Amino acid sequence: MLIDKLTHSTVGAGMIDFALRRAQNIHWQMLEIDKQARARQKHQKPCCLWLTGLSGSGKSTIANLLEKRLHAEGKHTYILDGDNVRHGMNRDLGFTEQDRIENIRRVAEVSRLMVDAGLIVLASFISPFRADRQMAREMFEEGEFVEIFVDTPLQECERRDVKGLYAKARRGELQNFTGLDSDYEAPLTPDIQLFAAQESVEACVAKVLLYLNRNA
Amino acid sequence: MLIDKLTHSTVGAGMIDFALRRAQNIHWQMLEIDKQARARQKHQKPCCLWLTGLSGSGKSTIANLLEKRLHAEGKHTYILDGDNVRHGMNRDLGFTEQDRIENIRRVAEVSRLMVDAGLIVLASFISPFRADRQMAREMFEEGEFVEIFVDTPLQECERRDVKGLYAKARRGELQNFTGLDSDYEAPLTPDIQLFAAQESVEACVAKVLLYLNRNA
Repeated sequence: MLIDKLTHSTVGAGMIDFALRRAQNIHWQMLEIDKQARARQKHQKPCCLWLTGLSGSGKSTIANLLEKRLHAEGKHTYILDGDNVRHGMNRDLGFTEQDRIENIRRVAEVSRLMVDAGLIVLASFISPFRADRQMAREMFEEGEFVEIFVDTPLQECERRDVKGLYAKARRGELQNFTGLDSDYEAPLTPDIQLFAAQESVEACVAKVLLYLNRNA
Repeated sequence: MLIDKLTHSTVGAGMIDFALRRAQNIHWQMLEIDKQARARQKHQKPCCLWLTGLSGSGKSTIANLLEKRLHAEGKHTYILDGDNVRHGMNRDLGFTEQDRIENIRRVAEVSRLMVDAGLIVLASFISPFRADRQMAREMFEEGEFVEIFVDTPLQECERRDVKGLYAKARRGELQNFTGLDSDYEAPLTPDIQLFAAQESVEACVAKVLLYLNRNA
């Protein structure tokens, strides 16, 4: 460990691979490499930061900046979102209600495996239904699943319409569009609520980092 | 980095979290955190070590010891196997041919995401069909997918029969059992071939570590 003499913060940490010159025939202790061992190695508390909110609410923007901040702190993170999941693992799924549930189930399972692997997972999905988010939460141990509600009003999301999806949906070219002809069930007791229409992305990210520091 | 003066091996590695006292208002560079950034952070080359072989060939034993060795070197690893996948992500799948293909496809996709996250993944699956292993390989970039054939003869696997599955299958209680009434298509050009019936687990693991060092 390297400690800054002025601030007493840890500025660096390393691991000595071997401290003694061991004989070659000594057996290694058969310790299981489990979640705790991986978390210790990474100096972090693995968790799943689940960002839910309407299309265009700012989930991806927040997740991206959050990942940069965490990475700069030496944390090991991974973003799971529609882009790397819908084209790969879940490319066999469409947008029927059943497929949307299965989409969230698999994403939550992958998040769980990644948290088990010691990572901080940033899962960014509209995930409009409470039951599905509850199903996801239940796959994790207490405190591992952090529901972050990116609470941007529908009007603001539609005004931005970065991907032009709201316009498409209003023209009737997209069915079951969340917020228009399909419900978004807002979280009743999210772990973190972000008002991305009023606060800057920086401020939103700072709020999440504060939460993580308090619950580390 | 800490270097052993006698052997010139790296015995420890750490990261300085900040080298200069920066002003608080300097903007962070908006670099994307990609596979390369994560791999650099972890000081390792992410890859998927895919262990294929008959039931009872020694895949899990080898994967477990391999993970311990890699973890001791400070590497960030994760084992994917039937235990953590069949009961979770793939619990909707059975053992029909189509379900077995889908099982391997999803496992390979999760491995790909984990390699993207910077991890060394140890995927331990019978994966009896060449086409499925090829499908898995094609999801990765050149050199990321390492096919490890745990080449233990059927007679030896059946003699061990640690889980009693061969006896069950012989009694007709298990259908489509690989090696008996379902084919195992041995890899023609595996990246690594392990003769786990003749060599010790230690020796098999050493062979894989040597391969990784040469291809790091």
